[in-house]
Amino acid sequence: MKILHTGDWHIGKRLNGVDLIEDQQFILEQLIEYMEENPVDMVVVAGDVFDRSNPSQAALKLVNEYLYRINIEKGIPVLAISGNHDSRSRLDYGSYWFEKSAYHMRTSLSGITTPVVVGGHHFYMVPHLDVLEAKVFFDDESIRTHHDVYRRITEEIADAMDPGAYNVLVGHMFISEGKASDSERPLSVGLSEEVGTELFDAFDLVLLGHLHHPFAITHEKIFYSGSLLKYSFSEVKQPKGFRVVETGEVTKCRFKPLECRRDLVHYQGTFDEVINEAVTFEDSRAYFKFELAGMETVNDPMAKLKMLYPNTLELRPVKKEHEAVQSTVDAHRSSDAEIFESFIETVHGEAPTDYQKQIFNTYFKGDADETDSD
Amino acid sequence: MKILHTGDWHIGKRLNGVDLIEDQQFILEQLIEYMEENPVDMVVVAGDVFDRSNPSQAALKLVNEYLYRINIEKGIPVLAISGNHDSRSRLDYGSYWFEKSAYHMRTSLSGITTPVVVGGHHFYMVPHLDVLEAKVFFDDESIRTHHDVYRRITEEIADAMDPGAYNVLVGHMFISEGKASDSERPLSVGLSEEVGTELFDAFDLVLLGHLHHPFAITHEKIFYSGSLLKYSFSEVKQPKGFRVVETGEVTKCRFKPLECRRDLVHYQGTFDEVINEAVTFEDSRAYFKFELAGMETVNDPMAKLKMLYPNTLELRPVKKEHEAVQSTVDAHRSSDAEIFESFIETVHGEAPTDYQKQIFNTYFKGDADETDSD
Repeated sequence: MKILHTGDWHIGKRLNGVDLIEDQQFILEQLIEYMEENPVDMVVVAGDVFDRSNPSQAALKLVNEYLYRINIEKGIPVLAISGNHDSRSRLDYGSYWFEKSAYHMRTSLSGITTPVVVGGHHFYMVPHLDVLEAKVFFDDESIRTHHDVYRRITEEIADAMDPGAYNVLVGHMFISEGKASDSERPLSVGLSEEVGTELFDAFDLVLLGHLHHPFAITHEKIFYSGSLLKYSFSEVKQPKGFRVVETGEVTKCRFKPLECRRDLVHYQGTFDEVINEAVTFEDSRAYFKFELAGMETVNDPMAKLKMLYPNTLELRPVKKEHEAVQSTVDAHRSSDAEIFESFIETVHGEAPTDYQKQIFNTYFKGDADETDSD
Repeated sequence: MKILHTGDWHIGKRLNGVDLIEDQQFILEQLIEYMEENPVDMVVVAGDVFDRSNPSQAALKLVNEYLYRINIEKGIPVLAISGNHDSRSRLDYGSYWFEKSAYHMRTSLSGITTPVVVGGHHFYMVPHLDVLEAKVFFDDESIRTHHDVYRRITEEIADAMDPGAYNVLVGHMFISEGKASDSERPLSVGLSEEVGTELFDAFDLVLLGHLHHPFAITHEKIFYSGSLLKYSFSEVKQPKGFRVVETGEVTKCRFKPLECRRDLVHYQGTFDEVINEAVTFEDSRAYFKFELAGMETVNDPMAKLKMLYPNTLELRPVKKEHEAVQSTVDAHRSSDAEIFESFIETVHGEAPTDYQKQIFNTYFKGDADETDSD
């Protein structure tokens, strides 16, 4: 059985104010083309279908259109879950009708132990959850971390599952590769979203969304599809595409990269070399983030850059050496004032003024004064 | 063939800030109960399914749930169109899948001349339109009023229709009973939404939404279902329910009133008689609008009323005699200052202060000064 695994579509996403809907349509079109040339038996969309709980009309239309082409035109079963960016009610709207066409949308915990069966495989669909709602749903006060949430869920499913079947979990969560021990984990109560891989031993395959890097984890049976596109400048070096999983005697999983409409480029250098085209870029219509030195005396550098690179989204003065050092400040060994100074330098690119320091000190007094503060 | 005709559900509507969703669920439950006891062959929802283009999660859930019960659980074909309150893309979301279960949702002009055929009858589905979009769609500059819009649409449909079939138009518009002549109509260009009944001669039946009164028009083949509930205090005297149309040799159309969860009550009288319970009301939990005299010396009259009638939504001092007269002020014969004074009296219940008059005169100088103003 051939499963196309995708997720984190984030339809309707804007990057620095720029609507990516045309880029998204471009990439979905390629997904369709792939399926035309390489028939698959089903499609898994592992959450974050939309970027916002209240998607735009164009976003709704795009999702409606492409899921129609996959599910109704091509007759391919679709399994989808809600991610943390989706509104559950919105994604659930129409799901009774979808179900009749083998388009299975799951947005709630109820019925989580009942698999969707496609091609003889059992798919357990786990929408994105937060700690509080899992605690309430299971009426279990011991649930305090995301790891606890998924421990409870995987236990419930494992109790109900047929161990003889091929069992797949579809989820939207942050799996941590490091085998964190229980003694380490409580350190991150209420902060960390990390879920340990050891919870998924009972499953034959785990298809995930949430992390945007398709190789966020290297595991023999746990996979992220990665996001459809590069959705932030921290993702510029990540390949984007989807996965094709072939189940059988041995499960084979391959990543298929897709060609995007416009790449994301993050360039660090000097303003002069860019504006004089001493350095050139493959696609002048790409989405650029420039970090440039030598802009101190340039009037409106952004406008000048946009004449060459109209889709320049971000421009910053290049970071100075010492800033990179400062950003690794050890919070445990620094005073509040030092952390504040380092923060301001990192954010603004220059040290706080004496006046800023004075304001900070007025409100966040040093350790010695702590008992006096109100 | 038995058609249940409903419309103007306005799910998610809030009345003076109060969420009516429980009232809406209550009434939809009765609609379902009716169908259980009196099977119908199809359901027509004539627009304004939701109250807002961006409905709440609870509103989405309610519509999803009840249309599921009608269409999938009971297997009754549903024909629905978008009204002026609906977002088309939102209502259209999922429509490809709905279509496969004989739930036909129409939100656009394309394909308007292709009927949905149910039980041998031809249904032409006309979503709510504004003048501009019809003008663009038909590329017809002569379209300047709502009447023009529907003249063009009904002509297009009449050209394409099978005159031998039973032809039904489902629409969401403001039909005017008076047979306005063309010489009168241009007076209201750009203002009036009125559409003349004469446009619908080619149809056997016209099922409408938009006007909330089920008897907004008396016509042998044109009917409004009216809204599901009383959605404003101007509707307190209107019956609310749905229509059952039986087609055959002779088309029979009956209005079926429904019992609401809480009535809307508009009471005019004195504060004393209400607070001393000299006057009482059938349901103390109804939604009240009080217009009362004798509140001048009462401290927080709203709080006092709410102790007796917790769902009091509105409280105003009773209108004085002269206000009713003032509200009919003839704008053509009054000065700007007179119109302003009348407006303030109508809105605030008392004449403007000298200071307010002075501010008004500063900005809106009298006719004589008009050329000097900037």
